[in-house]
Amino acid sequence: MKDTLTDANFPRTADGRVYHLGVRPGEVANRIVTVGTPSRANTIASYLDEKPKPFVLTSERGFMITTGLFKGTPVSIVSIGMGSPNMDFFVREIRESVAGDLAIIRLGSCGALVDVPVSTVVVPKACVAVSRNVDFDFVNPPSCQCTEPAYWISKPVSADPELAEQVLKALEAVKPPTSKAGILAGTVNASADSFYSSQGRQTSFPDHNADLIEHLVRSVPDLATLEERH
Amino acid sequence: MKDTLTDANFPRTADGRVYHLGVRPGEVANRIVTVGTPSRANTIASYLDEKPKPFVLTSERGFMITTGLFKGTPVSIVSIGMGSPNMDFFVREIRESVAGDLAIIRLGSCGALVDVPVSTVVVPKACVAVSRNVDFDFVNPPSCQCTEPAYWISKPVSADPELAEQVLKALEAVKPPTSKAGILAGTVNASADSFYSSQGRQTSFPDHNADLIEHLVRSVPDLATLEERH
Repeated sequence: MKDTLTDANFPRTADGRVYHLGVRPGEVANRIVTVGTPSRANTIASYLDEKPKPFVLTSERGFMITTGLFKGTPVSIVSIGMGSPNMDFFVREIRESVAGDLAIIRLGSCGALVDVPVSTVVVPKACVAVSRNVDFDFVNPPSCQCTEPAYWISKPVSADPELAEQVLKALEAVKPPTSKAGILAGTVNASADSFYSSQGRQTSFPDHNADLIEHLVRSVPDLATLEERH
Repeated sequence: MKDTLTDANFPRTADGRVYHLGVRPGEVANRIVTVGTPSRANTIASYLDEKPKPFVLTSERGFMITTGLFKGTPVSIVSIGMGSPNMDFFVREIRESVAGDLAIIRLGSCGALVDVPVSTVVVPKACVAVSRNVDFDFVNPPSCQCTEPAYWISKPVSADPELAEQVLKALEAVKPPTSKAGILAGTVNASADSFYSSQGRQTSFPDHNADLIEHLVRSVPDLATLEERH
């Protein structure tokens, strides 16, 4: 499929497929649920209507797109792996493959920075990025605070308020009365560029991150959760 | 495999497997070639000795590890997908799965920023990171240069000089006399966090990157190539 490419700014194959996700117009719906692994995608896809049989495509780069109907409404489920570069591929190449508004919901697991019971479903209102400063001297860190910090914390980026509200309403509507799982909304999520260093984990690498979590919680209002960045 | 985890700082399964790559000590060699796709990994793995049959593991997260012998020497080939978060998983989890020195060589394709003929094999001496500044106002960019720039260019990080020299020698030794492909060494590679914005591609998104390539070439000595970050 890579033999002939058109447009170096936005390469497509000769048959109109975007270069990394491998789809073309008509194969992706405007309503999208995105996840990190094919097994999660398959679990969600099992709720799609049986007929017509859903379209499934796994790209050379490991993206998996399933498009079908959920109670008659077209929905795509896209497994994108981990990390913001994969999210960048997903958003840009899907945007060029679908006309009209897009509604994208990401489902995943995360860690809690405040007292959130296990099994709680969290619907954040916004997200900050936590990024390793690769110019920081991690091997010989300065003893003063006279250089740029080891980690950058971005300003918050908001979720679409209407979509977040609809997600919350839908979750509340389907929650079984017997369920003990809570729903937490209106919090901020921190999305890190490493599962290890930028999430404060202590490993054998010199990450200079012993105070990172405390610094995060202190400096980001409403912060509740932490995850690998997407 | 995820039922029982040990150590939140460096989670492993109950049978000693690292959490995202899925391997455990004994399944990975000290000499590693890493690539971005399983098909590239399989091409390289086809050169491994037939016996003993190579070990192959594909993790839930899409990493594929092949370990075998090449002319009697243990080698692993690891497909890690795209983006620096995946490289972070790879380096950290492999480091915890192998004792002793690691020699890691990454093979991939890239774009050229100077006059490098197609089919040239490039052995960079160092790499800079190009990262989108997510706090920059891309929708209403300032007309002055009075804010932080839209993209960060990191200081160069050097390859291991001895390993780079050995790679160059090995390439020169096996290059067929009739081959027209050149070998370029001693240059700097730019590794971007987006295939699109941070590599200067012009798309429908407001990326404020029209001058990025020119700025890169002007400000990074010996810069020759550009790729999605790994």
